[in-house]
Amino acid sequence: MIKAWENTFQMPVKGRTSKYPSGRTAGITMVIDKGLGINATKDLMATSADYIDGLKLTFGTSAFYDEKLLREKIEVVREAQVDIFPGGTFMEVAVAQGVYDQYLQRTKELGFNAIEISDGTIEIPDQARKGIIQKAIDKGLKVISEVGKKDPKDEIPIAKMCELIKSDIEAGAFKVIVEAREAGKGVGIYDASGAVEESQVDSIVSGVDDVNNLLWEAPLKNQQLYLILRFGLNVNLGNIAPEDVLALEALRCGLRADTLKRALEETG
Amino acid sequence: MIKAWENTFQMPVKGRTSKYPSGRTAGITMVIDKGLGINATKDLMATSADYIDGLKLTFGTSAFYDEKLLREKIEVVREAQVDIFPGGTFMEVAVAQGVYDQYLQRTKELGFNAIEISDGTIEIPDQARKGIIQKAIDKGLKVISEVGKKDPKDEIPIAKMCELIKSDIEAGAFKVIVEAREAGKGVGIYDASGAVEESQVDSIVSGVDDVNNLLWEAPLKNQQLYLILRFGLNVNLGNIAPEDVLALEALRCGLRADTLKRALEETG
Amino acid sequence: MIKAWENTFQMPVKGRTSKYPSGRTAGITMVIDKGLGINATKDLMATSADYIDGLKLTFGTSAFYDEKLLREKIEVVREAQVDIFPGGTFMEVAVAQGVYDQYLQRTKELGFNAIEISDGTIEIPDQARKGIIQKAIDKGLKVISEVGKKDPKDEIPIAKMCELIKSDIEAGAFKVIVEAREAGKGVGIYDASGAVEESQVDSIVSGVDDVNNLLWEAPLKNQQLYLILRFGLNVNLGNIAPEDVLALEALRCGLRADTLKRALEETG
Repeated sequence: MIKAWENTFQMPVKGRTSKYPSGRTAGITMVIDKGLGINATKDLMATSADYIDGLKLTFGTSAFYDEKLLREKIEVVREAQVDIFPGGTFMEVAVAQGVYDQYLQRTKELGFNAIEISDGTIEIPDQARKGIIQKAIDKGLKVISEVGKKDPKDEIPIAKMCELIKSDIEAGAFKVIVEAREAGKGVGIYDASGAVEESQVDSIVSGVDDVNNLLWEAPLKNQQLYLILRFGLNVNLGNIAPEDVLALEALRCGLRADTLKRALEETG
Repeated sequence: MIKAWENTFQMPVKGRTSKYPSGRTAGITMVIDKGLGINATKDLMATSADYIDGLKLTFGTSAFYDEKLLREKIEVVREAQVDIFPGGTFMEVAVAQGVYDQYLQRTKELGFNAIEISDGTIEIPDQARKGIIQKAIDKGLKVISEVGKKDPKDEIPIAKMCELIKSDIEAGAFKVIVEAREAGKGVGIYDASGAVEESQVDSIVSGVDDVNNLLWEAPLKNQQLYLILRFGLNVNLGNIAPEDVLALEALRCGLRADTLKRALEETG
Repeated sequence: MIKAWENTFQMPVKGRTSKYPSGRTAGITMVIDKGLGINATKDLMATSADYIDGLKLTFGTSAFYDEKLLREKIEVVREAQVDIFPGGTFMEVAVAQGVYDQYLQRTKELGFNAIEISDGTIEIPDQARKGIIQKAIDKGLKVISEVGKKDPKDEIPIAKMCELIKSDIEAGAFKVIVEAREAGKGVGIYDASGAVEESQVDSIVSGVDDVNNLLWEAPLKNQQLYLILRFGLNVNLGNIAPEDVLALEALRCGLRADTLKRALEETG
């Protein structure tokens, strides 16, 4: 559907999944939110809610909101049928301080409906990880887990990463994020300039059952383009900047030169 | 005029054109809009309408707006006496699908008052291009055309580009955009790092009748600065990010260090 | 304090100063504003006022505001107990045009409560500089001065810079900014890529009485991180983008991976 132009023409690339009525399971777009205010949040939901599956209040930024403002923001986002959750680093702090149960409790109370579970900075033994995921699910939270370390020096072997992906999904995680941080440079599948290291992607893909279980953090356009061309318009992407949501949607659907060109070549 | 400081002091660089009463023909600033919501659009018009000549809903992003929201946004922009138009890629999709007439019709109906005509991705024979421009003018739309390919592999010779510029202007285009994409890197007059390739600029300039017919896409500050220093404060610039409009105006008028320094040197 | 999560857990890095009740003298965060509209300004104050000490309407951008809008914006910012001032370049224009007294007068009238005093582009003899600072203080304005040239070709010796820092503080400046421009590249303590040149930092530090008198312009994350790791969470930082305020606060307090990791290592 081309909304305001509905009967005028068609999407060059067809097959985009819809969020409605009950949420997408493929073609996910997760947005990174570094502190949008209420006006900006309302703007984002009005222009883009149909194209956003989840909003992450990244790092520990949610710590700095007044409670009233945070509740109001969460409500605006939830009304637009968008998942909302605090950043994984925040959850890691709770685990490190031994207060994960209280963290889950408060996450629910504040109105978040999802949670990110990661070990980007701290160490979590495999068995504990399963329990952590289970507890969140028991609380009624949607779990998005993450693999990969924030500091490249701590990187884990890809075989280990694939094992975690598998076991997280088995434990009930909705998707497993492949870490790339906010900047998308020098971490995970990206080199220091942000270019994709194809061999890394190959290794991950060949080590997992279903690539649709993965949610690739891809803050830069070249990364989004690579992943769309490789895995199709409904690849799951994360750490998308709020101002890039419609541009990404255009890229997925062939309404931006890079993917339009290929669509035209294919249809002749 | 220095608005809130009107009687305090003067612009270091004088001669900036005004939009009023009937629109600027030199010194154009075109803004690239990737999906501003209503609050942000109102903010932009309130702070910057006097310094913005046109707003482009870039790529095919306008496809993703609800009709009501799109109409409201267009109204806010038009009330501020700013031109508004969908991105050229969107028009190329319509041409490729053989529904250009319907596209023009809908563009008008939705309230847009201008249109971008480009062949950044598709091929359009010269004769057809003239007809496309003419039809838009007949519909009462202001035409901004564009030369240059989005993919550097498809680049056309500069002589050909200059020919198109001339014939577009003859056909009634208001200005002809020199393509640089959103990023301004590795395309047209910019190298992979975004630096200006002077020899490219020289070739274009020597091939056109009037450099004021051109509107240079210049998303990066070094590009804006180069073009202002070379062609003067009233050079036509496009793909300016919304958050950079006042910074660009400061650069034009000598209220930013780079151009202030030169203004002070010149006046002694 | 972790606001909305207050009784859930603790900041990993402790000792962050508070703005309240009477303004911070260490741990300053100065934000660079290139033209935020009223909605965006209200958003910023609602989410982040507790973490912002000052807002700079950078370069000469304040010249382009309608008086009514500018007054309204200043009021919103002042109500949030945030200092607000025009960019130093604007003050340099006034000095160059011989209307500094009128500039001070108008700055006060419009509602600004602070002023930036710099010589990034123009030359100001030492004695005149003292007089300029004194006059602003006499008017009841908080003075933030700046050392360093915008054009690297004009760079002054660090010994001279340290002398100016000392004499500005003696003359009553609240803090002295170490210049890095909006981009933070190829200027002052940063090389062309934005990396910190440690030897430059060392020289400045060893030439001043109290490093807390300095406010380091640090627009890029790697710069903020370096300065926090070197000088502690309460280092004074400037030219922070509005959208980065909460991310910076997270970095200061160990709620972002880079500083969380170190905090966990230190506490075992």
